[in-house]
Amino acid sequence: MMKIERLSDIAGLADGLPTADIAARDAALARQNSLTKPPGALGRLEELALFLAAWRGTAQPRIARAQALIFAGNHGVCAQGVNPFPQAVTAQMVDNFHHGGAAINQLCTLNGADLQVIALELDHPTADFTQAPAMTGTETLGALNAGAAAVDPRADVLVLGEMGIGNSTVAAALCLALFGGDPADWTGPGTGSDAEGMARKRAAIAAGIARHTPCSPMEALARLGGREQAAICGAVLAARAARIPVLLDGFICTAAAAVLHATDPRLLQHCLVGHASSEPGHRRLLTALGKVPVLDFEMRLGEGSGAALALGILRAALACHNGMATFAEAGVSEA
Amino acid sequence: MMKIERLSDIAGLADGLPTADIAARDAALARQNSLTKPPGALGRLEELALFLAAWRGTAQPRIARAQALIFAGNHGVCAQGVNPFPQAVTAQMVDNFHHGGAAINQLCTLNGADLQVIALELDHPTADFTQAPAMTGTETLGALNAGAAAVDPRADVLVLGEMGIGNSTVAAALCLALFGGDPADWTGPGTGSDAEGMARKRAAIAAGIARHTPCSPMEALARLGGREQAAICGAVLAARAARIPVLLDGFICTAAAAVLHATDPRLLQHCLVGHASSEPGHRRLLTALGKVPVLDFEMRLGEGSGAALALGILRAALACHNGMATFAEAGVSEA
Repeated sequence: MMKIERLSDIAGLADGLPTADIAARDAALARQNSLTKPPGALGRLEELALFLAAWRGTAQPRIARAQALIFAGNHGVCAQGVNPFPQAVTAQMVDNFHHGGAAINQLCTLNGADLQVIALELDHPTADFTQAPAMTGTETLGALNAGAAAVDPRADVLVLGEMGIGNSTVAAALCLALFGGDPADWTGPGTGSDAEGMARKRAAIAAGIARHTPCSPMEALARLGGREQAAICGAVLAARAARIPVLLDGFICTAAAAVLHATDPRLLQHCLVGHASSEPGHRRLLTALGKVPVLDFEMRLGEGSGAALALGILRAALACHNGMATFAEAGVSEA
Repeated sequence: MMKIERLSDIAGLADGLPTADIAARDAALARQNSLTKPPGALGRLEELALFLAAWRGTAQPRIARAQALIFAGNHGVCAQGVNPFPQAVTAQMVDNFHHGGAAINQLCTLNGADLQVIALELDHPTADFTQAPAMTGTETLGALNAGAAAVDPRADVLVLGEMGIGNSTVAAALCLALFGGDPADWTGPGTGSDAEGMARKRAAIAAGIARHTPCSPMEALARLGGREQAAICGAVLAARAARIPVLLDGFICTAAAAVLHATDPRLLQHCLVGHASSEPGHRRLLTALGKVPVLDFEMRLGEGSGAALALGILRAALACHNGMATFAEAGVSEA
């Protein structure tokens, strides 16, 4: 099991972590080109099969076990009026996850993922980053290792998501610290802020950036982030150590993982982004990361919903890759 | 069971066919807005749930039975060298479907559709439309009614697809006859034509258009189409009579259904297009029909593969719509 001793160690991790298996990818490509279809005719399904082959290190990867991890946290910046929902909704939604009533429950059941929800000290929100660093280094490291420890090393794919009232403000602050721009570039309505709520979000983000930056990406995670953001980073790293490809969710989840990208872009090579959120900062973030999302459905729910939807597409890609007959097997003439 | 007596009857059908149930759609929308998520946060999944509610006529539609129908035909225009694969591949691929080796088999198994493959007189290709009308009116009507008869009236959703060496040329000719433009606007590589093959396709299409148009949409189906195109039209109509929403596949399937749109646009109101094909004419056709595809995966295989992939998205939309808790049920505070 991966355990990070110091946040500053993460910058040096990439050299020691597994890389894509090019031989497995090539073998998967040879199989794709032998299947009863014109080469390339399954489009992005073929690319996804090759991606999974490369990271699982086998020409015919399978998803016997899919894990979905949803991390929940609370945020002191809610004191700035950045969210129309009361902070109690974070815990209420965690209960909803446990009782099977949320979108993520339905999507995990449909697409065959084992869902685990990890609530991270919901009774102890982070500090309000407009006033102080959101987390200490120790708190950040604790959440990061909680995320790493939650990863099932036997999983074939990992779906990541989050829940936390106020965390679209946290995500926007992280993006601004990591990639620059203006608060407005990264600020959207989140769960449904009106114009005044959006103005409060931008003001809070500007105050946090003025107080805490410039700083390193991992320092930004501690000063502006939250526990679920740190846990997502830990889970991404633990998945990489086990060669488990990751499906990131929307803006908030991707912004958390972007801390790793800003530390070393290689740390996200095993990650797909499940969907393009309608939260406007997400497209800008995807461009910054060089990631093409699997789906684009104008979703903006979080809780891993877009990533869990994309899991069905990965299953389709592998169903075709592993189940189709070759031209020779089927006795079909080639062009 | 729907039986069309004369091709000319189709122009008058729309007035007597079921329409979207607005009350059911409104009830489904009220349910969506009560579920534990910000209103609209599931994006296009919500729209799809409402579409299915409207056509099934119930606030909580379910997919207990999904049918996939793949129609196969052969085309005399192959004599013009329009396809790099030999015409025997149509029957070979039908065998592959029957033996479970094609992409559509894997996708139907994954997404829970009952697949039926209807081979339409493969030993008797249509006439070469550069020389004569492809089909007689009787042949056209026979194929159309074969398509209608194949629809299971107990299905909750119908996936449509096709197989037929040479039929991207047929589809391009139909689009040109229905919507105008130049042969090049509608002609793409299909299963993999090179530049010379593409030139032969354009020349064949131009010759067919010069010989057979102007004409009505149903006359275009007979003169330029094929049996699988007529069968798709029949299946779309029979599905409509039974309030079964339809997932059309890519360029060739959509071009066949476009004959109905050109006859009366209301005839395709119950149809979704499962995906945007990478065959270049498909985007132009989607614009002409005013249809937004469910998925965009750069697929170009046909055989219903993009529609069957989209079936998984419909299942996800309904899993959330029917399975999620309301705010009241879950005890979650509203904004």
